[in-house]
Amino acid sequence: MNNEDLTPFIEGGLRDLAALVRLESVSAQGRMLPEAADAVTRLLEAEGFTVRRYAGQVAPVLIAEAGEGPRTLLIYNHYDVQPEDPVELWDSPPFTLTARDGRLYGRGASDDKGEFMSRLAGLRALRARHGGTLPLRVKWLLEGEEEVGSPSLDAFVRAHAEELRADGVWWEFGSITPEGRPVLYAGLKGIVCVELRCRVADSDLHSSNGAVVDNPLWRLARAVASIRDEQGRVTIPGFHDDVRPASAADEAAIAALPGAGEALTRTYGVTRPLGAPEEYHQRLNLMPVVNVNGFHGGYGGAGSKTVLPAEGVVKLDFRLVPDQDPDRVVQLLRAHLDAQGLGDVQIVELESHQFPARSDLADPFVRTAVSVAERVYGQAPLLNPSSGGSGPMHPFMAAVGAPVVALGIGNVGGRVHAPNENILRRDFESGVRFALEFMDALGEHA
Amino acid sequence: MNNEDLTPFIEGGLRDLAALVRLESVSAQGRMLPEAADAVTRLLEAEGFTVRRYAGQVAPVLIAEAGEGPRTLLIYNHYDVQPEDPVELWDSPPFTLTARDGRLYGRGASDDKGEFMSRLAGLRALRARHGGTLPLRVKWLLEGEEEVGSPSLDAFVRAHAEELRADGVWWEFGSITPEGRPVLYAGLKGIVCVELRCRVADSDLHSSNGAVVDNPLWRLARAVASIRDEQGRVTIPGFHDDVRPASAADEAAIAALPGAGEALTRTYGVTRPLGAPEEYHQRLNLMPVVNVNGFHGGYGGAGSKTVLPAEGVVKLDFRLVPDQDPDRVVQLLRAHLDAQGLGDVQIVELESHQFPARSDLADPFVRTAVSVAERVYGQAPLLNPSSGGSGPMHPFMAAVGAPVVALGIGNVGGRVHAPNENILRRDFESGVRFALEFMDALGEHA
Repeated sequence: MNNEDLTPFIEGGLRDLAALVRLESVSAQGRMLPEAADAVTRLLEAEGFTVRRYAGQVAPVLIAEAGEGPRTLLIYNHYDVQPEDPVELWDSPPFTLTARDGRLYGRGASDDKGEFMSRLAGLRALRARHGGTLPLRVKWLLEGEEEVGSPSLDAFVRAHAEELRADGVWWEFGSITPEGRPVLYAGLKGIVCVELRCRVADSDLHSSNGAVVDNPLWRLARAVASIRDEQGRVTIPGFHDDVRPASAADEAAIAALPGAGEALTRTYGVTRPLGAPEEYHQRLNLMPVVNVNGFHGGYGGAGSKTVLPAEGVVKLDFRLVPDQDPDRVVQLLRAHLDAQGLGDVQIVELESHQFPARSDLADPFVRTAVSVAERVYGQAPLLNPSSGGSGPMHPFMAAVGAPVVALGIGNVGGRVHAPNENILRRDFESGVRFALEFMDALGEHA
Repeated sequence: MNNEDLTPFIEGGLRDLAALVRLESVSAQGRMLPEAADAVTRLLEAEGFTVRRYAGQVAPVLIAEAGEGPRTLLIYNHYDVQPEDPVELWDSPPFTLTARDGRLYGRGASDDKGEFMSRLAGLRALRARHGGTLPLRVKWLLEGEEEVGSPSLDAFVRAHAEELRADGVWWEFGSITPEGRPVLYAGLKGIVCVELRCRVADSDLHSSNGAVVDNPLWRLARAVASIRDEQGRVTIPGFHDDVRPASAADEAAIAALPGAGEALTRTYGVTRPLGAPEEYHQRLNLMPVVNVNGFHGGYGGAGSKTVLPAEGVVKLDFRLVPDQDPDRVVQLLRAHLDAQGLGDVQIVELESHQFPARSDLADPFVRTAVSVAERVYGQAPLLNPSSGGSGPMHPFMAAVGAPVVALGIGNVGGRVHAPNENILRRDFESGVRFALEFMDALGEHA
């Protein structure tokens, strides 16, 4: 690791980031997506990439390619952003990158234009270090539909598996702790979202009829109560059958993670943690769970109303771990409800689900990311076998056949998806250095 | 039973009813309540009543008294009405009594100004039959707070128990079937309404945290699921301890009731009746039940939102039977939730509860009502030991010490509390005749 001055690359990267933030590429509203794809294309072409552009459902998908070497890195980012509203809660214009108190504010400053630019700036430094060439092959997949659930990505990655083949995938997010420690994820939980619906009549009745007409909210409550236990363990028969046991490396990584969610408890004022403190990281990384996202039916105003509601609806998400299959989980839920005498409770599957994905922590690609992060940040990264969250990682691992790591420049106060989204300038600078050294190290592994 | 022509009394009663309907005595909005109390006072004074006026919490309470005789009848009615909105759904002005297709439309036409006027018109006919005197003592209690839950009534009746003492109480509602058969109730279920609240954090979290933070909607679902069984029987320990066994007369009356709620099923499109058809009347009259009136928390919009809600709320009503005590039920619920490990689920009691009340069907007062109804309507009334609904009947039975019967002039399409409230003119006419003959029969029982 050289210690060349990266200031020009950092400054140039931030200038380009400011230009990208100005493009209001809100995928949920179909705003300025081709323009953002054009801008990203120009930036990549300027570094010698050839860029192929494909039609997505909402926005173009780009595959860029540059460099030569025995190793191939696939980078995944996205150029779309979340809507800026409520705009009145921003302290500076959402689409103007604005420096304030060591932070850079703007929609996409972190998620994901800032992450993309820190990597591209690092790649520019890498080319400079190697006299205008890259010591590895870099493939870059950029989509403009991530904030609307990546509706094209799964099929796209499968269809372009050969084109995307690589030795490792660098995922689109990651964060740095307040103490400057990088947080690295080697997997994501899968997810499947469903609605449960129950209806007992065409219209609401007076509640005196509760003696002779069943109650849809009670039936839904029984369904919900029956799918997990007091400790949060899912109780649907067969649900855990496909859970792959954690590897020794997973267990070791979990054991090395400090604390038990104290920041979460403090930030959100949590009064009912689930599981023992010593299980915190195990649960968050490796335990499949079910969540009640919403439960609605009947009267919700002040005081009482003696109504027997005609219907109710519950929203659930299941967070899955390898090798659980979202479709299979829905089938097991159906069988479970039927067995509970709740055959009348309808299951409606919502949106596209995600398979779980978890990389082998012993893979050289993951080990390189960990050791470079330790050198660049001056402390060992917090290595999570899996995030508690979900995303379209599985098609990359399944189709491209490569391990995946997520390491980025987000921060705990980064307000991603919210007003005043930001990155710490410090984290952008370190991110450029990490990108440079990570790619250089992958190139050296010849 | 004479067959004198009641036309003048019917016409006069409808004229007075039209004047009463014009008074917009909406208790929920405090509109024109003293004016309505004045109008009722004038109508009663014109028939020889002395009227005492007491302050209620929202509107005056009136006790009127007239006549002499060995028997005393206490009549309970109210002069307040429900709000008229949504006013755009009325086919004629809500406060103008309007005749259309054999029906009389207007707010209060049925509930309860129409009922009051049919009785007063019958009393006028009784005076005419007896040469300007009454063959019994009539006490009339009228309140203006019924549509806001009768907040003054319980304490008022207890405080005025001596003044209200009577041999029987004629309740404020009742209905006639489409086939012209009167429906008589000799009791009301009690009620107690509560909210269950659960909170696990200060603000909503991302649902990936569902692995390490408990879910308030699951906890509430478990609470709700635990308080009754699949057949609707309440499973809270001790809940049934105070239930008085039904009398032989109650059981016989239940057995004589026809059908199994076919009209309810048809009108509301009920797809999940509770209990066997042959249990229908037993359950509606005699079974204490719990109802989930509302369940709300978390996301309720379209699609999915991966949120772990900070809190949720459930609204329940318990419908009670003699000799259950609403306070005791809340205590048992608390103990039950604690025993289930749900000590964190808060119980908030809503509004004033009602004790259950049920008259002795063998009491001469009840038997007189039944036999007069059979004579007037030409068919035996449907005698229900109790309505499935609730109201402030208990203080009358407990303090006044008299049985209560409800028999009135409502109809199944009467849209009480809704736009286009109405009575059938036929039912008003029969109601005048019933009032005349019922009071005359009570007078004869000397």
